[in-house]
Amino acid sequence: MDESTIRHYFSGDHFANYLGIELLDIGPGRARAKLDIDQRHLNGVGIVHGGAIFALADLAFAVASNSHGQIALGINVSIAYHKGVSSGTLYAEAEEIAFNPKLATYQIRISNQEDETLASFQGTVYRKRETLEQSHQ
Amino acid sequence: MDESTIRHYFSGDHFANYLGIELLDIGPGRARAKLDIDQRHLNGVGIVHGGAIFALADLAFAVASNSHGQIALGINVSIAYHKGVSSGTLYAEAEEIAFNPKLATYQIRISNQEDETLASFQGTVYRKRETLEQSHQ
Amino acid sequence: MDESTIRHYFSGDHFANYLGIELLDIGPGRARAKLDIDQRHLNGVGIVHGGAIFALADLAFAVASNSHGQIALGINVSIAYHKGVSSGTLYAEAEEIAFNPKLATYQIRISNQEDETLASFQGTVYRKRETLEQSHQ
Amino acid sequence: MDESTIRHYFSGDHFANYLGIELLDIGPGRARAKLDIDQRHLNGVGIVHGGAIFALADLAFAVASNSHGQIALGINVSIAYHKGVSSGTLYAEAEEIAFNPKLATYQIRISNQEDETLASFQGTVYRKRETLEQSHQ
Repeated sequence: MDESTIRHYFSGDHFANYLGIELLDIGPGRARAKLDIDQRHLNGVGIVHGGAIFALADLAFAVASNSHGQIALGINVSIAYHKGVSSGTLYAEAEEIAFNPKLATYQIRISNQEDETLASFQGTVYRKRETLEQSHQ
Repeated sequence: MDESTIRHYFSGDHFANYLGIELLDIGPGRARAKLDIDQRHLNGVGIVHGGAIFALADLAFAVASNSHGQIALGINVSIAYHKGVSSGTLYAEAEEIAFNPKLATYQIRISNQEDETLASFQGTVYRKRETLEQSHQ
Repeated sequence: MDESTIRHYFSGDHFANYLGIELLDIGPGRARAKLDIDQRHLNGVGIVHGGAIFALADLAFAVASNSHGQIALGINVSIAYHKGVSSGTLYAEAEEIAFNPKLATYQIRISNQEDETLASFQGTVYRKRETLEQSHQ
Repeated sequence: MDESTIRHYFSGDHFANYLGIELLDIGPGRARAKLDIDQRHLNGVGIVHGGAIFALADLAFAVASNSHGQIALGINVSIAYHKGVSSGTLYAEAEEIAFNPKLATYQIRISNQEDETLASFQGTVYRKRETLEQSHQ
């Protein structure tokens, strides 16, 4: 599936757009996204919310797992948080680590502009027979 | 720690507020929150985003784990998604399943207005010596 | 599927037998197993190994998820360890928390003879079309 | 901490020894272990048990996380299973992905003799002040 079709598909992701998450690169089984931190992403003590970090990683996970053109639904995610931040830019990079017709697994590394690892996300999808194009008709 | 202090502390959670997450009940080691689904919570195919479900559960997790008054930081979360929804109201209910001076673990059930279980979240916190009051000074 | 067929099926689990894991109760979507701790289950400092606790919970998970008669394969597990022990009896109790034709999720509580929660295990299976009987032919 | 001290410490791991798990390499924050599959590792349908794969990965995790000399206790693990096997040799390789005085996180890749990834394990430890030497006195 070509990159512009995937970009088009994910351009309608209201939640990612509402949070200011931006899709950077796409490849087969891979994706990279970023988030410029502002006040809406913070918790009550001025640290980026775990849910905002999750959402960024989740977009990279969704794009990477749907990049083959077949609809992929997240069924399990595990995230470990290593370090808190309160400003700057966050990056999430998804890599495919296992893949079969029904299931695939991805690791997503979340880092900041100094390339420190802030969180580690591992997610598994269930792959439907349906393609992205079919889901949009 | 009394409920009004915890409510006050979490009323400044920018991310939860921005998403429209509402804190319902609080108790020792327990919390319940809700989210009325609207367009900003949806992904590109009109289903509530996994990140929005996570964020709702994460608030219940944060409130329950900080309810003892000592600062608790989420270090690991695992979430399993069971069923997608596109409208209605989501609820997250957090329960403490293990607790010691340094670490505590919570299970959060995410359900809809018909009480169907949509996702299951299990999270562990590291408990600092610092209290919520100290963190606000 | 009746209980004796499931018991028969799991009686050939070499790994569980080798570790001394014993299957107690079986029901639809439920199972309970136990392990009497002895030296082979300990790590280098005399505490029950995380892998032994996992194995006990994993058997309860396997029995509960296969109890409907359709083959179920574990695809994701998350375990949180709360308290170490070095002697006594361990119990694992599996409960089904979500279920559809393709996927199902279980929570397994691991406790000791004083009913303290020692670890919490959450697992998801992929359900094949094949039944247990077919897999044994 | 030098390698021979760590090897000595883990040579007394009854559970790993009972399963035939063998420690290969050790480095700062790293470890590699192997398991030659035989009948005791199989489940009722002749496939290596998820608990045996977990146990192998768990040893690599324990050695890597204790390699700095400070006692490290596993508090959370998430494992995704990608492919089943019934014979051959399994390898687990642990890598440190985050580290601070109190907490550290590791990724462990489980593969077979053909270097196929069979499972992916992500684990977090709580690091005590106590050292391995102190725990053995």
